[in-house]
Amino acid sequence: MSSSPVDALKRAAAEAAASRVVSGMVVGLGTGSTAIHAVPALARRLRSGELQDIRAVATSYQSTMLARELGIRLVDLEEIERIDIAIDGADEVAPDLTLIKGGGGAQTREKIIAALAVDFTVVVDEAKLVDRLGSSRAVPVEVLPFAVAPVSRAIQRLGGQPELRMAVKKAGPVVTDQGNLLLDVRFTEISDPARLERDLKMIPGTLENGLFVGLARRVLVASLDQGVPRVRELLPPGTS
Amino acid sequence: MSSSPVDALKRAAAEAAASRVVSGMVVGLGTGSTAIHAVPALARRLRSGELQDIRAVATSYQSTMLARELGIRLVDLEEIERIDIAIDGADEVAPDLTLIKGGGGAQTREKIIAALAVDFTVVVDEAKLVDRLGSSRAVPVEVLPFAVAPVSRAIQRLGGQPELRMAVKKAGPVVTDQGNLLLDVRFTEISDPARLERDLKMIPGTLENGLFVGLARRVLVASLDQGVPRVRELLPPGTS
Repeated sequence: MSSSPVDALKRAAAEAAASRVVSGMVVGLGTGSTAIHAVPALARRLRSGELQDIRAVATSYQSTMLARELGIRLVDLEEIERIDIAIDGADEVAPDLTLIKGGGGAQTREKIIAALAVDFTVVVDEAKLVDRLGSSRAVPVEVLPFAVAPVSRAIQRLGGQPELRMAVKKAGPVVTDQGNLLLDVRFTEISDPARLERDLKMIPGTLENGLFVGLARRVLVASLDQGVPRVRELLPPGTS
Repeated sequence: MSSSPVDALKRAAAEAAASRVVSGMVVGLGTGSTAIHAVPALARRLRSGELQDIRAVATSYQSTMLARELGIRLVDLEEIERIDIAIDGADEVAPDLTLIKGGGGAQTREKIIAALAVDFTVVVDEAKLVDRLGSSRAVPVEVLPFAVAPVSRAIQRLGGQPELRMAVKKAGPVVTDQGNLLLDVRFTEISDPARLERDLKMIPGTLENGLFVGLARRVLVASLDQGVPRVRELLPPGTS
């Protein structure tokens, strides 16, 4: 991990989330350059004895591998009934705490785990805050490999411009942890994220997409305050 | 293939559907003990020269393998813009031509192909006709392997009783052609199939389910008429 100023912000947000974990909890471990900082933060608290009896569920190979390396006990979804807190990043956060996720290609497992979490806590640096979803990012959609062509046409009928995500350090497209492909879909406007999330999921041949609506219980946002990282908390509208 | 009386009915329905195919068409090849009879019927018409320039898309390993064996030209979904006719079976057919499919475990590809077909023609023997969907069959739901437990709980909250489909001639559960698992879900009543189809698909971690609503353009039903197979056509309500 680098130690650029942005990276320091990401770490501050993830560490603030990790400090919410208490002994005995089941914790969802997110994916990506921000959320992954929560894993060493939890490991430190476990090593110090401050935290005990934590079980974690991972959203990706990335979080699985780092948790194993740092000795955090991992369990399968089969072994748990609920997740007390899931800590994950986002690519865009709107004022109503709807999200675009999936820059790391893990939105399918991330959504399964977010939906199981009592407290789905999102960690971002302030550059991820937007007035409207889709301002800067495409919406990732996981697709069965043989269905890319018909799914792409169906997405165009919904007004989106799909682009197959291509890999670096591997020939051809990115393959997800489930063995599928990703379409990054640009929309000129996302006026109703809940409806678009449903419309994308209902296309035969798609798995989960990167629109997360009604899932985030809080967003921890890190920004620089006179050169020092500061973390503030955003809650969903109507929450006191 | 056996040649029992029921099998003769299945073959009669599938052959009636195959006779609707004309030269130059793109044909979807279904899966299961009824639809698979359409493949040799098409092969015979191609060999006789009566049909020419047919391209087929398969819904499963089963239909892929038989089409290859019989010399029918197969194309990927990438190579075509639409399917002129798709011929497939069903486990239950309601009076409004909503269906339960997926006894063969292929409902994910079958739904992708049915949705692309201009003429989705369903072939069944009369034992598949029911007054209400769910009378005799469970609804198959394809599920990512690691998500079986949370998806099962979500299905129970929808009023269903999920059961993991177990394999024969392989230890453990059935694995689909996409590498996933199947939950067969019993419902005491399916009052709104369109809504249930959507509710099941929206559970994070599911792929397609066996409810097919608004897709069938016709159902060809084979029954015995004084010992002789007879095929009649059912059209959606409001079609003349």
